[in-house]
Amino acid sequence: MKIQKYKKDFSYSYTLGAFPTIELIKFKKDQIINVYIHSSFSNKEIRKSIFDLLKKEETKIIENDDKIFSKLSDKENVYVIGIFKKYEMKLDNSSHHLLLDNPSNTGNLGTIIRSSLGFNVRNIAIIKPSVDIFDIKTIRASMGSIFSVNIALFDSLEEYKKEYSNHKIYSFMLQTSNLLQDFRFDKNTYSTLAFGNEAHGLDDKYLKETPIKIEHSTKIDSLNITNAATIALYEFNKQVGNK
Amino acid sequence: MKIQKYKKDFSYSYTLGAFPTIELIKFKKDQIINVYIHSSFSNKEIRKSIFDLLKKEETKIIENDDKIFSKLSDKENVYVIGIFKKYEMKLDNSSHHLLLDNPSNTGNLGTIIRSSLGFNVRNIAIIKPSVDIFDIKTIRASMGSIFSVNIALFDSLEEYKKEYSNHKIYSFMLQTSNLLQDFRFDKNTYSTLAFGNEAHGLDDKYLKETPIKIEHSTKIDSLNITNAATIALYEFNKQVGNK
Repeated sequence: MKIQKYKKDFSYSYTLGAFPTIELIKFKKDQIINVYIHSSFSNKEIRKSIFDLLKKEETKIIENDDKIFSKLSDKENVYVIGIFKKYEMKLDNSSHHLLLDNPSNTGNLGTIIRSSLGFNVRNIAIIKPSVDIFDIKTIRASMGSIFSVNIALFDSLEEYKKEYSNHKIYSFMLQTSNLLQDFRFDKNTYSTLAFGNEAHGLDDKYLKETPIKIEHSTKIDSLNITNAATIALYEFNKQVGNK
Repeated sequence: MKIQKYKKDFSYSYTLGAFPTIELIKFKKDQIINVYIHSSFSNKEIRKSIFDLLKKEETKIIENDDKIFSKLSDKENVYVIGIFKKYEMKLDNSSHHLLLDNPSNTGNLGTIIRSSLGFNVRNIAIIKPSVDIFDIKTIRASMGSIFSVNIALFDSLEEYKKEYSNHKIYSFMLQTSNLLQDFRFDKNTYSTLAFGNEAHGLDDKYLKETPIKIEHSTKIDSLNITNAATIALYEFNKQVGNK
């Protein structure tokens, strides 16, 4: 296998750094092709836990190929790299969902995945077009939490709704007077928290769902999308809890 | 005045882009040295509003010097640049505060400033060491909201407390069992919401204030600092409102 800088059309991707690589081994072990440890990696504890976690497959660990580190990473502090086969996931019909319509920034996508897992929403629907969910920047910003959630892509909101008709969709958008600050989520159904694109938000067709606005001072134009999504996840989790 | 790429020891800094430059003109007009508009800037409405806002000082607007755009900005879509003298601010003693101990990332600092203004906390104390509050990346991430808040630097928490002894400090940290999800803020005093450094949080001396934890799933290591601060600001604003 020839190692090259990541491109979207590859059938595999990389975790750069010990933390996301350990998440990969813990939650998606079957997908692993190889784990590289730099010869000068000095954290013996983490090295041992990588060996322990991989157990019988420790032949996949490569410790004598430092060249790939400079090839794959621009950052100097990367001493562990994982290579894994990409995979498809299905959403759990009996869980709450997050829905992202047209996410266009890999860093934001990764950060939202991390917050979503942090507030126990482990199923994420993405309406295309979308940035690459397996981009190394998405994985890095997610701190490896991408390996603990289900993500599925859909061509349209309609396609998503057909498949998950048991979910009530809450659309976070400014074109409404329903305020999150006063809002009570329905605890007796499965919920989907929907967010739009970084620049233009959700379009008006989402007004037909249950729209909610996160009220903020008029002194700012908008909240950053990852902050807005995290507030919604926090408030939802506080009111409804896990499911 | 010779225009060079921004350095921390300059007595002036830059706004890159129309949006933060307009915020600069609106809220810190007296600090402005010059405003540059690129000769190919096609948004007539924004150009007009820059002229209107600057009124009698429109001689400060320079429209025939495109070279400084390539000199100061790596981004192609910057058509307006402001140059302003740095300034000192004092915190309002009769307002709620945000406190950041040792912020180390300019982008995070700017994003937190934007969220803080968004939830009506317009006074920000920073405990040194700190990244440069006037770094162009701080200003960009704040989307110009830095010009609508007061920011003051302190050598230590003790110095801050001496000056603002009427404030009750809430320390957001993991070393406590007080959960934000169940917490009621004191509405009868001025509050300070305190956050630590991106990598290591607040140290144990902050336990002597009123510590609060934002509970999240054990499946993630931590929330991103800007997301954590934004949740706290949202919840505080919801409970206490403006002051």
